[in-house]
Amino acid sequence: MSKIVSEKMYELGSKRSEIRELFEYGKKRIAEVGAENVFDFSLGNPSVPAPDCVKETLADLILNGDPVSLHGYTSAQGDAVVRQACADYIQKTHGCNATANDFYMTCGAAASLTISLSALAQEGDEVIILAPYFPEYKVFIAQAGMNCVEVKCRESDFQIDFDAFEKAITAHTKAVIINSPNNPSGAVFSEKTIRQLATILEEAEKKYGHSIFIIADEPYRELVYDAEITVPFIPNFYKNTLVCYSFSKSLSLPGERIGYIFVPPCCDEHDAVYFAVCGAGRSLGFVCAPSLFQKLVPACIGQTADISIYKKNRDLLCNALTAYGYRVVRPDGAFYLFVKALEDDSRAFCEKAKAHDLLIVAADSFGFPGYVRISYCVSTQMIERSLPAFEMLAKEYLK
Amino acid sequence: MSKIVSEKMYELGSKRSEIRELFEYGKKRIAEVGAENVFDFSLGNPSVPAPDCVKETLADLILNGDPVSLHGYTSAQGDAVVRQACADYIQKTHGCNATANDFYMTCGAAASLTISLSALAQEGDEVIILAPYFPEYKVFIAQAGMNCVEVKCRESDFQIDFDAFEKAITAHTKAVIINSPNNPSGAVFSEKTIRQLATILEEAEKKYGHSIFIIADEPYRELVYDAEITVPFIPNFYKNTLVCYSFSKSLSLPGERIGYIFVPPCCDEHDAVYFAVCGAGRSLGFVCAPSLFQKLVPACIGQTADISIYKKNRDLLCNALTAYGYRVVRPDGAFYLFVKALEDDSRAFCEKAKAHDLLIVAADSFGFPGYVRISYCVSTQMIERSLPAFEMLAKEYLK
Repeated sequence: MSKIVSEKMYELGSKRSEIRELFEYGKKRIAEVGAENVFDFSLGNPSVPAPDCVKETLADLILNGDPVSLHGYTSAQGDAVVRQACADYIQKTHGCNATANDFYMTCGAAASLTISLSALAQEGDEVIILAPYFPEYKVFIAQAGMNCVEVKCRESDFQIDFDAFEKAITAHTKAVIINSPNNPSGAVFSEKTIRQLATILEEAEKKYGHSIFIIADEPYRELVYDAEITVPFIPNFYKNTLVCYSFSKSLSLPGERIGYIFVPPCCDEHDAVYFAVCGAGRSLGFVCAPSLFQKLVPACIGQTADISIYKKNRDLLCNALTAYGYRVVRPDGAFYLFVKALEDDSRAFCEKAKAHDLLIVAADSFGFPGYVRISYCVSTQMIERSLPAFEMLAKEYLK
Repeated sequence: MSKIVSEKMYELGSKRSEIRELFEYGKKRIAEVGAENVFDFSLGNPSVPAPDCVKETLADLILNGDPVSLHGYTSAQGDAVVRQACADYIQKTHGCNATANDFYMTCGAAASLTISLSALAQEGDEVIILAPYFPEYKVFIAQAGMNCVEVKCRESDFQIDFDAFEKAITAHTKAVIINSPNNPSGAVFSEKTIRQLATILEEAEKKYGHSIFIIADEPYRELVYDAEITVPFIPNFYKNTLVCYSFSKSLSLPGERIGYIFVPPCCDEHDAVYFAVCGAGRSLGFVCAPSLFQKLVPACIGQTADISIYKKNRDLLCNALTAYGYRVVRPDGAFYLFVKALEDDSRAFCEKAKAHDLLIVAADSFGFPGYVRISYCVSTQMIERSLPAFEMLAKEYLK
């Protein structure tokens, strides 16, 4: 308890996350038993290097660019050429109308979210989040002064439970955050899900007489592994959408903090929303997205790191765990496996996994107790080495 | 007036700044009369390229580094090696105790400020700012939910007016933002000023029974031009200081967003303050400072762009304007000349300057009406070409 700082910020900064605790524990165990005997599935850090275009483009910009403009301020909303490249790509890929003036470049998805929420926030607003969810959503919603309402997804396939969803909508609902492909479930919302979501929100807009936004948190958009899976582009189904994109995962650049907010031209009061986004970015202290990494975008947009490695990891882990008796919903995207714990208390289950040096995360903080998250953005070799431990753990329960 | 977004954010995003308006006007005039006849002194964008170490280090990191760790997440407070390099530099340069755990790497000075303010903010807190000031201070203080109290500096030398300052301190005073070298006055607070400030704040801490912080906004620390001028390192004089540093100006990297917050070990409740800083960075959506530019710091800290060009510009402009009859307080640092307008209404004066295609900024938004800011981070040739226009403008008033 401090007397001189914000109690809320102190709490947020002093409480170590469970994931961080696990990671530190893993380092300790590595010192004790060797790296080859510790199986750390805790972190969502891309394990595949950035595609070649990243290195090539960065080297070209640095060796041949004019340093004053290369490293100089861009306009607050981002370099005009970069925003045009984003617009062209969205138009071409998703057939959605888009101009440079619909994009606001950000320092990654977290910034996209805090800026979007602050831009929309009005007295008493509620934001619906769908469990399982990225835990920081609650932090960002509180930062914007909004109230968080949780709705659980269906356990059978992690699509939206629309009965529960409809009950959660009130006169105060301002936005719904969706995250597809999802961290931590790996689920991709189907076109059917998105159409139904759009219909319900449009009805709620009419009923309550004000706009309701979908905030589409999309860092994993490109990380899907099967030809038959498509990730619906939300603005094509629902006009009041803010797309919060990040290049962190697609280009394996999570530390560089580069992404954007797309405010579709069809959005209600488009210019007001865009200006509010600009104002929120300014107010939160973002100034502009990192200049060099903005300038990387035109050459690399649409490319991805070699995600076939994630697909291989998913298949290996998913098949093995299913064979050992775990209940796994096969994830269509992202790089997480969401597995039902073999006892009701998922934290206790994770402790038992630790005894086998399997470091996996209880999904309680993701709003879904009873499950665990296994990040498969790791080396395939580590997964192979870990399988006997997963098998032994299952045998302790499933005798 | 929008019905669906935050009115405050809409206001911040839709009102174009005077500086931006001027810049757009300048582009229009360039199209009409040619670039050589327009004298744009409006922007504070470094005009000198980054030092060689920047290009060399970036090229080395990109060509020879492991892309997964190079572009990966660092810990939220910043890479440990980078923070150690900052600590070593501060210890060596300023003789101030510093460890890696006293540094929090940020996306530049604006982020350092919004994070520091949010970390400290408690119900009813007041923050004192000293006019002339960087206009965004008021935005950042409001973002943190704090109240802003303005105190004007002495017009004779732009040091602190301590009579006015003492009157502004109340039981609610939580912090004072100082910015030395100053944007827009160019003044550097002397050791005498800092010692007196420290004494007054220590007395106020005793009187009111709580800590009061100096938030030292220091993007211009290295931009001083005369051997006899030193910029006091505030933690050596006052323990409750948060140093908000940015490499934007020293390394000419303003678009890359890289800086730090230093929480000195001697600070009251050091760990609580540091944790609150971590919490505020998390809450505002910063995740981590850009990874590549963090990793540039160990090789480049302490180096600067070629600031002799700014010195030459300052001397040329300062001497010429003084000779034409303007009242100029010779700036010791930063890259701004703060000049008394030749009529009471500084905005009207700037309009008359525009008739000579001299684009200079009225200081009203800096909290100091009656003055103008002339940015000399421009080419020396432009300054030379502009001098007849400054002379003619003076003659209109000083007949």
